[in-house]
Amino acid sequence: MRIAVLKELASGETRVAATPETVKKFIGLGAELAVEKGAGETASIADADYAAAGASVGSRAEVLKGANIILAIQGPDPAGLKGFADGAWLAAGLNPFGERARVDAYAKLGLEALAMEFMPRITRAQSMDILSSQANLAGYKAVLMAANAYGRAFPMMMTAAGTVSAAKAFVMGVGVAGLQAIATARRLGAQVSATDVRAATKEQILSLGAKPIFVETVAGIEGEGAGGYATEMSDEYKAAQAELVSSHIAKQDIVITTALIPGRPAPRLISDAQLASMRSGSVIVDMAAESGGNVEGSVSGEAKKIHGVTVIGASNIAALMPADTSALFSRNLFNFLSAFWDKDAGKPVLDEEIGNAVRLTQGGKVVNERLLG
Amino acid sequence: MRIAVLKELASGETRVAATPETVKKFIGLGAELAVEKGAGETASIADADYAAAGASVGSRAEVLKGANIILAIQGPDPAGLKGFADGAWLAAGLNPFGERARVDAYAKLGLEALAMEFMPRITRAQSMDILSSQANLAGYKAVLMAANAYGRAFPMMMTAAGTVSAAKAFVMGVGVAGLQAIATARRLGAQVSATDVRAATKEQILSLGAKPIFVETVAGIEGEGAGGYATEMSDEYKAAQAELVSSHIAKQDIVITTALIPGRPAPRLISDAQLASMRSGSVIVDMAAESGGNVEGSVSGEAKKIHGVTVIGASNIAALMPADTSALFSRNLFNFLSAFWDKDAGKPVLDEEIGNAVRLTQGGKVVNERLLG
Repeated sequence: MRIAVLKELASGETRVAATPETVKKFIGLGAELAVEKGAGETASIADADYAAAGASVGSRAEVLKGANIILAIQGPDPAGLKGFADGAWLAAGLNPFGERARVDAYAKLGLEALAMEFMPRITRAQSMDILSSQANLAGYKAVLMAANAYGRAFPMMMTAAGTVSAAKAFVMGVGVAGLQAIATARRLGAQVSATDVRAATKEQILSLGAKPIFVETVAGIEGEGAGGYATEMSDEYKAAQAELVSSHIAKQDIVITTALIPGRPAPRLISDAQLASMRSGSVIVDMAAESGGNVEGSVSGEAKKIHGVTVIGASNIAALMPADTSALFSRNLFNFLSAFWDKDAGKPVLDEEIGNAVRLTQGGKVVNERLLG
Repeated sequence: MRIAVLKELASGETRVAATPETVKKFIGLGAELAVEKGAGETASIADADYAAAGASVGSRAEVLKGANIILAIQGPDPAGLKGFADGAWLAAGLNPFGERARVDAYAKLGLEALAMEFMPRITRAQSMDILSSQANLAGYKAVLMAANAYGRAFPMMMTAAGTVSAAKAFVMGVGVAGLQAIATARRLGAQVSATDVRAATKEQILSLGAKPIFVETVAGIEGEGAGGYATEMSDEYKAAQAELVSSHIAKQDIVITTALIPGRPAPRLISDAQLASMRSGSVIVDMAAESGGNVEGSVSGEAKKIHGVTVIGASNIAALMPADTSALFSRNLFNFLSAFWDKDAGKPVLDEEIGNAVRLTQGGKVVNERLLG
């Protein structure tokens, strides 16, 4: 059982899919680990650290040779994948909806591609969930990005020259990222409010000491779809929410938007007119910028001034704190593979519930229900 | 009594020396206010906001014409100063030791230059102290810069994929900036320690919930000079501190250095060898980079990787949060001038204690003891 760990080649990707900690644990299960040279460099992990943990370190061709499982953060370019064992697994964040051509290519290569972001949101899979682990840290980082771009302080400060008032921060979308954003903005001393399309989040918002901002009077806005994700909202809700936001947002200094709908463009939460209602110098971090954006005019990977408001279109936030995000992503992969490890076979054997959820390709074909529609 | 507020022209300077709030207050004292066009733009204050507060807005020549008091953040280029009233005051952060040639030029122009950073550290002048007000916010911002550059999280996080441990942060130099840095790093959830050359700071460090790291065994390290500033340290102390730092720093993820000695180069607190002892991925913010740096190799205005450690040479940190720092700087100026306002004369009249401390030039000559000394 040979496990290959690839160096990420995508622009801006700094994470790595295994750490010395998980290398040791996989070896403890009886696997042989091969790490591509320089794979951990941007996450502050030296090749020597992998070697000390018991892995061999080599070129891409060397680590892929005879590999039974290939680990990566993002789906690697199919063109560079050669020499692995028949029916090898590729476990990574494969972005199946956005990178469908790659999925087809993995099938042709004979790979069994496992999309970690298709992990079902069930209790026993929580420790394998890359979306949660990465979103958690991304929510923290989004608030730091906002605080760093903001021309004022977050906490109230009593100084000899008078008082600096606390920033007002509004978190839109209270999933894993939103909850961590609330907690971080509170830590920094901001006055925090939050909203979501799922009424169940109201308790969570309150439990973090923030103020829930909810459209209470409009029916039919409950959206909780399969797997605990928000479903797309009704037109009626959208209108009511826009109205709520219009009055609330005009008083906010900081807004963090986190609303995503898997496989679809991100919902528009803030219009240009609403931006214009905000105070000059306010800051918005659009965590959905890569999926089309929650904020009108936001551009992934850029910070723009719109009506005097700094709109930061976040792009792969998790890659901005690669040491911690790599550690958690790597643990997700280890928790996943080790949970199904068959000692007699000396390799993991997936069950139906999780295996069918994450498996995109098998036997040369695309087999996943969500891709076959 | 005409007060002119200049637009800052120095590179990277975003602050402004008056806000609509202080404009109103000066007008309340009977002054006439003239604000240079665009002066508040980078601090998110529009010309219209100044006009609404009662100021006239115009070109530099227009606002200087007949001005009795000129307000600025940094000392303006003497070449552009024309048309003001005889013996007009220039109140700003004039950097008297670093910009001595300018001070001489202000004398030749017949200006009475008042260096706000020479404000004595006495109780009644606390509300006029720009060094304190700006350092306070700079200490906050330095921690945000460190947190933003750090590849891990500051707080301990318990996640389904395991625990992320809290960052270890060390603050060197516990003046106003250092105290705020300790408070902010604690807010963000780091494990914080701190040191200083003044033993009196130990209580302050403890009161903020941080761990004091002090050389206890070396005599003669007490350095508290005139005006509450640290004096230069003895060689014996330097050696002992370097030894202490060498062992403590090797375990730190984040270091914030804040040690300044007025009119002299900043003391070296961290050597290249000590940098090499730190874990790859650690972050240092050198708040003294503009004065030569507390950290070997740090460059003002740059972030460099040295032995895998990100060393951020901070440059005019206060300008990175111009809305709040401008508000406090402006209040310092108002508190200063209003405290000495003579209603009958319709202008401020300084007393000896503060007047002699801050006055650099008068009657065409440099008159300040610290510059003549």
